[in-house]
Amino acid sequence: MGFGPVIDELIDALRVLPGVGRKSAQRMALYLLERNRAGAQRLALGLENAAEKIGCCQECQNLSEQEICSMCKDISRDKETICIVESPSDLMAIEQSHHYKGQYFVLKGSLSPLDGRGPNEIGIPKLVSRFKEASIKEVILATNPTIEGEATSHYIAEVLSANNCLITRLAHGLSMGSELGYVDGGTLNHAFSGRKPVLTND
Amino acid sequence: MGFGPVIDELIDALRVLPGVGRKSAQRMALYLLERNRAGAQRLALGLENAAEKIGCCQECQNLSEQEICSMCKDISRDKETICIVESPSDLMAIEQSHHYKGQYFVLKGSLSPLDGRGPNEIGIPKLVSRFKEASIKEVILATNPTIEGEATSHYIAEVLSANNCLITRLAHGLSMGSELGYVDGGTLNHAFSGRKPVLTND
Repeated sequence: MGFGPVIDELIDALRVLPGVGRKSAQRMALYLLERNRAGAQRLALGLENAAEKIGCCQECQNLSEQEICSMCKDISRDKETICIVESPSDLMAIEQSHHYKGQYFVLKGSLSPLDGRGPNEIGIPKLVSRFKEASIKEVILATNPTIEGEATSHYIAEVLSANNCLITRLAHGLSMGSELGYVDGGTLNHAFSGRKPVLTND
Repeated sequence: MGFGPVIDELIDALRVLPGVGRKSAQRMALYLLERNRAGAQRLALGLENAAEKIGCCQECQNLSEQEICSMCKDISRDKETICIVESPSDLMAIEQSHHYKGQYFVLKGSLSPLDGRGPNEIGIPKLVSRFKEASIKEVILATNPTIEGEATSHYIAEVLSANNCLITRLAHGLSMGSELGYVDGGTLNHAFSGRKPVLTND
């Protein structure tokens, strides 16, 4: 390599980032060292701070600086609806669409026994105990539309069925802006079976 | 955003990396916090170490941990040839092709008066003083084949012309594996004017 162990270690360390291979890591390392040392130090501090301070919200399991996250504390949000997602990034996507204003519960991934993720690992007991504390009227299952996500939704629906609340699943169908010719068969089947009457007299 | 200032700051800090926009930065931050905290800490340490320890080689201006870099110290390298490049990444590309085994001199970019980079800013005086100390027989100009790179080469050739050494420029021509139909006119002109006799009788 010719740059010595410190730079080589930085290049290797940058490769922990998702989507960054050897060439990109090298480019990033040289860019930071040649042109933006202040940025490198800011990033180092940001990483350290985050790795140290960010924990898990005690109520919803979302990433949070405090014991109870700002969304669980927010009294303006609907307390009787809870949306169950697989990860903090799913929650962020929903928040950024500005439609849903209820509570969340963030699973630690989907059920996947082969990978060692059973109900206890993803936080189902905490979800169940939350139902004992609060009066929840609707559960929205927003796991990913994958085999693991569907299985997880199915399992949660069974576990929560005794709680006498409405359990719903996000609609499956065509994505906005997609072209019918390129849509997969599974999605098309869902779109057909979930079709809705067009209201012409309203 | 909903994740609080510490994560937001981490996402912003990740955007200093070249080629990383808001979405990628968010993905990187959540990946590190959810799945690879050890990686985040390693990266923080690597960045801090590098920003603190990496300086400039006193002889060739390459990035280096020591006052004199390992390449300048290496006695197995040819001391009478010096290759002039614009940046450490150019040097790395040349090193990785394992052809050249002489000395280097790394400019701090190319001459660009409009951006405030004159001969002093890119290190020409240090290059000139190096010629007084060592006996150099060949200078290889390996700046980029851009307008600024060509101008920089031209300037250096003039400055060094009094030193009674051979001054060469990297060949311009077709890239290996390129298709003639897609090659630009400037490159084709260089390829024609630099054509070589094919030796059939050897």
